[in-house]
Amino acid sequence: MKIAIYPGTFDPVTNGHLDLIDRGSKVVDRLVVAVLRNLEKETLFSSDERVEMLREVTAGSAHVEVDSFDGLLVDYARKHNASVILRGIRAISDYEYELQMAMMNRRIEPGIETIFMIPAEPYSYLSSRLVREIARLGGPLTGLVPETVEARLRAKVS
Amino acid sequence: MKIAIYPGTFDPVTNGHLDLIDRGSKVVDRLVVAVLRNLEKETLFSSDERVEMLREVTAGSAHVEVDSFDGLLVDYARKHNASVILRGIRAISDYEYELQMAMMNRRIEPGIETIFMIPAEPYSYLSSRLVREIARLGGPLTGLVPETVEARLRAKVS
Amino acid sequence: MKIAIYPGTFDPVTNGHLDLIDRGSKVVDRLVVAVLRNLEKETLFSSDERVEMLREVTAGSAHVEVDSFDGLLVDYARKHNASVILRGIRAISDYEYELQMAMMNRRIEPGIETIFMIPAEPYSYLSSRLVREIARLGGPLTGLVPETVEARLRAKVS
Amino acid sequence: MKIAIYPGTFDPVTNGHLDLIDRGSKVVDRLVVAVLRNLEKETLFSSDERVEMLREVTAGSAHVEVDSFDGLLVDYARKHNASVILRGIRAISDYEYELQMAMMNRRIEPGIETIFMIPAEPYSYLSSRLVREIARLGGPLTGLVPETVEARLRAKVS
Amino acid sequence: MKIAIYPGTFDPVTNGHLDLIDRGSKVVDRLVVAVLRNLEKETLFSSDERVEMLREVTAGSAHVEVDSFDGLLVDYARKHNASVILRGIRAISDYEYELQMAMMNRRIEPGIETIFMIPAEPYSYLSSRLVREIARLGGPLTGLVPETVEARLRAKVS
Amino acid sequence: MKIAIYPGTFDPVTNGHLDLIDRGSKVVDRLVVAVLRNLEKETLFSSDERVEMLREVTAGSAHVEVDSFDGLLVDYARKHNASVILRGIRAISDYEYELQMAMMNRRIEPGIETIFMIPAEPYSYLSSRLVREIARLGGPLTGLVPETVEARLRAKVS
Repeated sequence: MKIAIYPGTFDPVTNGHLDLIDRGSKVVDRLVVAVLRNLEKETLFSSDERVEMLREVTAGSAHVEVDSFDGLLVDYARKHNASVILRGIRAISDYEYELQMAMMNRRIEPGIETIFMIPAEPYSYLSSRLVREIARLGGPLTGLVPETVEARLRAKVS
Repeated sequence: MKIAIYPGTFDPVTNGHLDLIDRGSKVVDRLVVAVLRNLEKETLFSSDERVEMLREVTAGSAHVEVDSFDGLLVDYARKHNASVILRGIRAISDYEYELQMAMMNRRIEPGIETIFMIPAEPYSYLSSRLVREIARLGGPLTGLVPETVEARLRAKVS
Repeated sequence: MKIAIYPGTFDPVTNGHLDLIDRGSKVVDRLVVAVLRNLEKETLFSSDERVEMLREVTAGSAHVEVDSFDGLLVDYARKHNASVILRGIRAISDYEYELQMAMMNRRIEPGIETIFMIPAEPYSYLSSRLVREIARLGGPLTGLVPETVEARLRAKVS
Repeated sequence: MKIAIYPGTFDPVTNGHLDLIDRGSKVVDRLVVAVLRNLEKETLFSSDERVEMLREVTAGSAHVEVDSFDGLLVDYARKHNASVILRGIRAISDYEYELQMAMMNRRIEPGIETIFMIPAEPYSYLSSRLVREIARLGGPLTGLVPETVEARLRAKVS
Repeated sequence: MKIAIYPGTFDPVTNGHLDLIDRGSKVVDRLVVAVLRNLEKETLFSSDERVEMLREVTAGSAHVEVDSFDGLLVDYARKHNASVILRGIRAISDYEYELQMAMMNRRIEPGIETIFMIPAEPYSYLSSRLVREIARLGGPLTGLVPETVEARLRAKVS
Repeated sequence: MKIAIYPGTFDPVTNGHLDLIDRGSKVVDRLVVAVLRNLEKETLFSSDERVEMLREVTAGSAHVEVDSFDGLLVDYARKHNASVILRGIRAISDYEYELQMAMMNRRIEPGIETIFMIPAEPYSYLSSRLVREIARLGGPLTGLVPETVEARLRAKVS
């Protein structure tokens, strides 16, 4: 059984992330969405909130589970018997950073491979940062994030 | 069972391709290396020769088979019950072309996903074109292509 | 009155071009779609056919006219009292080439400015080359080119 | 009448911005330079100072006015009957960010188009950040910013 | 005698920097590794520590010396009779920033040229930031930094 | 004594090449401009003509000589006791190709280093291909190529 980890900050999860979760879950047998409990940069939502939102919006997805992690990603992957790391790529700048991380992870743990997938076109410019910015400015979020996330965003920024 | 197609011209197969075949075969259950019988651009090796070389150098790889195809890649993938297309990415220029092809293939056949993987660092600058050029100039090919391919290249360009 | 030239090969015109023509025609007062009668690279359609297709598919567009040209683009623009050149950009590779051309055109004729616009997302990966390739392989063209262009493409490649 | 908004932080305005204002003002009928009263990142100059400097250095430009705004750019544009957003692009990294913003703005308000223009070559590497850095290190600013801005920068960093 | 400055933050020096120092020292007659005593962003190691580590790990390199500087790089270069600035480039994002800096430095001091070199492949994805991150997460650093730097990093982050 | 090879097709030499030759000749002790007698792609000028033009326009440059070569660049460099290969970089697409070549050359001959330099801004978009195209279309070449090259170009394309 092929298990993949889809790591990220998900602050908050967007429809682009959901699109990738859906695509990724078709390529492997089990997909673990792993929320990074990042201690360095401040997040809008706590790691518990980020996990909670992801659980709500992936509730119907078979083969998908949500978890959170700390420390080295490859250590976490190894503990979960995952042999694959899934990452989405959109812009060139993403791509370079992603390549760098994939190379470093491979160096630390050669037994785990990173695969890249691309989200659907309407999400090609979507990011959590952009979503937070639009929410802060009171702009429309419909179609960018699930409804439950939109409600939480509105509550958070008001 | 997850079946992936790894399409390409393979004119000729390089150690970078072999590295990717090896990595890809660990992510899916079966990997079909599919040689494009491209009629538009001229190749150094015939499609039969390209298939033959690939078969020789992947002989020991379980879950890997070599085939050739014509026409739309997604039609070929569908006929082989493949749900995944595997592509290697190295440089930015690759990346853009690959994205374009993946988007177009998804449009024609939404049921097939493209995944991208990156070759090991020593192969990050390697391409069939570069290999043909070095062979033509009489330069060293050791480590760039399998021995059997090197012999055929030398014979072909002399 | 601001007149813009939208130059290109249009071999053949795609829905991405049409999207850009539509957007461009809103930014200036008159938009001249100018088919390059390129003598260096071979085209699938003759310059007359390319003009004809463009005229058919832009027939309903006010402020848009179709023409063809030879020689330096800026000479053509000057003769038509155009002060703007319109170009679409999608991928990074486009972007660099477009920048180079815009810089050179500015050098030859500082009075004419190049503006760049981006097509709608579904067309972000679309190009005439890709359309010709899909036609050649017998793949589906619906949504990529206007119906009349699809019919001509089918006739041309069969 | 075509009205365009040229939004930015302008902290401070550079000769590259002025070059773009000059070019943009030839493409549309009226150009509104709109200073973003950004509340998230700290600026060297207050929004009032940034507006003031822009007004001083564009005083002689017909069809150009300077304003400031808060909230969603497209809301501001709509209120001013602007149908065009003008942005300068230089490097690839700019380009990707600009594309993302243009796509998002189009999604929120499809009636407003973003056009991109490129500054003159001597300004291709110029940015407000670089100007602030040179000022902080006591380096020469002549040719990079207008004289009045240079004087204010010197006063600010000393 | 050609003297080159290799400027950087070196927070801390990595094996990628050492690789470049080695390559650079073969191209010019004397190479001055110049630690930027950057006052704006916080560093993990003080400028004295960064100089000390560099001195330790370049002790055996003929034609290489280590120094630190403040203010404009070109002023520092001029004072040391250096006619060349050496910079390493890896990813595209590096490249754009480096180009920008090189252009600006040339503008301030046309007598000093910037040359770019590329590190060996195993270091193509290596950066001080990545090294600090791995150290913070308790990951393996062998092969990424010299032993003495690894020991100091471990001490610093624990 | 540091000797560098500046290889290229120079079909024909442009002012951008001359700018780089000038800059490169200040960094090393002797610069050999080496014309590639490329047998694969057709050139507008013969290799003898390309060498001749280069000799004419670099006649006054101390430390610069012009030669031509065939076969592997690193073999040629070795024979001339050159330890450095000089290449100019402008756009991103250049950069990737140049990186690839530099990596391959380093693999074949680790004792030779490639250094990259950037031309002056007015030449950032200039290429031999663009110059040939403008000549073919009868456009102005002043400032893009030396006078003697302009005369030869005009004669060649008429």
